[in-house]
Amino acid sequence: MVITTDMLMDGTDFIVSEVGPRRAGRKAMAANLSDIAAMAAVPMAVVVSVALPHLATQGTDSPSTFAEQLYLGLRDVADAFGVPIVGGDTNSWASPLVISVTAFGEVTERGAVLRSGAKAGDWIFVTGPLGGSIRGHHLDFTPRVREALALHAAVELRAMCDISDGLAADLNHILEESNCGAVLVAEAIPVSADAVELSRTSGKSPLQHALGDGEDFELVFTVSASDGEKLLRTPPIAGLVKIGECVESGLWLEVAGIREPLAPTGWVHEL
Amino acid sequence: MVITTDMLMDGTDFIVSEVGPRRAGRKAMAANLSDIAAMAAVPMAVVVSVALPHLATQGTDSPSTFAEQLYLGLRDVADAFGVPIVGGDTNSWASPLVISVTAFGEVTERGAVLRSGAKAGDWIFVTGPLGGSIRGHHLDFTPRVREALALHAAVELRAMCDISDGLAADLNHILEESNCGAVLVAEAIPVSADAVELSRTSGKSPLQHALGDGEDFELVFTVSASDGEKLLRTPPIAGLVKIGECVESGLWLEVAGIREPLAPTGWVHEL
Repeated sequence: MVITTDMLMDGTDFIVSEVGPRRAGRKAMAANLSDIAAMAAVPMAVVVSVALPHLATQGTDSPSTFAEQLYLGLRDVADAFGVPIVGGDTNSWASPLVISVTAFGEVTERGAVLRSGAKAGDWIFVTGPLGGSIRGHHLDFTPRVREALALHAAVELRAMCDISDGLAADLNHILEESNCGAVLVAEAIPVSADAVELSRTSGKSPLQHALGDGEDFELVFTVSASDGEKLLRTPPIAGLVKIGECVESGLWLEVAGIREPLAPTGWVHEL
Repeated sequence: MVITTDMLMDGTDFIVSEVGPRRAGRKAMAANLSDIAAMAAVPMAVVVSVALPHLATQGTDSPSTFAEQLYLGLRDVADAFGVPIVGGDTNSWASPLVISVTAFGEVTERGAVLRSGAKAGDWIFVTGPLGGSIRGHHLDFTPRVREALALHAAVELRAMCDISDGLAADLNHILEESNCGAVLVAEAIPVSADAVELSRTSGKSPLQHALGDGEDFELVFTVSASDGEKLLRTPPIAGLVKIGECVESGLWLEVAGIREPLAPTGWVHEL
């Protein structure tokens, strides 16, 4: 059994006056199921507590509309994974919306995947394109629950994390807990269309967005080299990309064959 | 296994500028363990998510002081029951403090006590004096975890609730879910010293406070008449009081032998 809890707040995780309560609820549920996915567990049940803003600040016709839309958003994602909302606590107050979800998962026969199992020589993969999620993906992503289970059934996942802080930062969490390093290959990192679009105005390159932006909610994980070859030969899921390998120490980005230090913030000197 | 979740907010459940973060944390943990007690389960673990107010509004010297005091308050109560805080999510924002706790409990061999098991003829008990908790008890109460387990070991508890909305309201929850009624005996209801003190200025009687005030966090429960006699003969805990009996329907207060309807708000016409 694994447990995760994540609290989302209006103004921090979403702007409810812009995105509406349904998408806010959607994100709250998806972010929590993403944490269950990161451990390659099967989500079993969730509880949800909310502090609803008072009517005057909800921007909807009635308090039930706001609460119902929020609930529908939570259910949209929970239902997609067959996860019941088994309880909760509903409050209202004169401050912004807060949603707190706690999710329970059951680990498979292989056990939970932690952040601490990566070894030098491991291959590093991600489950999809990265960067620019602020353009909308951070609200509408699908948590990689099925992908994690399919991967964990196919091979032994040694360490895994969902990308919420950014690829470099979340990979660094794995490296710190596993006491090893990593080299990422710049050309191999899958860059999302949103990262490309954002780079037109942001002053950053698409790769910088892919390395540094948060809330992609894809998975980054490591496997042995032989399991990595197996995954490349017969990918159990779509979108799988090898982005680098674990080494003894440090976090590095290889650009055109040259290795540069990569900051855990996704920042690299030479880019 | 039982799960409960409860979200507490500054300005609703406590005024953090008056009571400080330690007592706020204390209450958040105690309220959740009280919900576990209400099912006669053994609390096993909790997760805690918080939205901390920004420093300027914390009224303390440093953010760590505020967060540490809050954590110490959570730990004060969790430690008293040997319950580990196994995870959580820490955020900060420009709005008031929010604390969301989710607690997990293991039921005993007798199973969880629900609200739905009361029957006409059952005796009704409470675990301690009621009313006036706003004077401080609502922050500093001890959740009745040990009492619930001692009672459930001694006899079969048929229905139970912790008193958070008020005796009449919470008993009414039991009656609605059990599809029966109850007669409370006015003279038998244990009135706290706080209820007496509060009645000096509130315009209400001490009994009205005992019936209607929320957040006593004592337990109200029903047992068969024979188990009730057993509890009176050999009380497994201190403070146990028989306050009435279940009947076919209605909620009634008997004052000097005369039965009057009692509103679930604790309000009675004749008082």
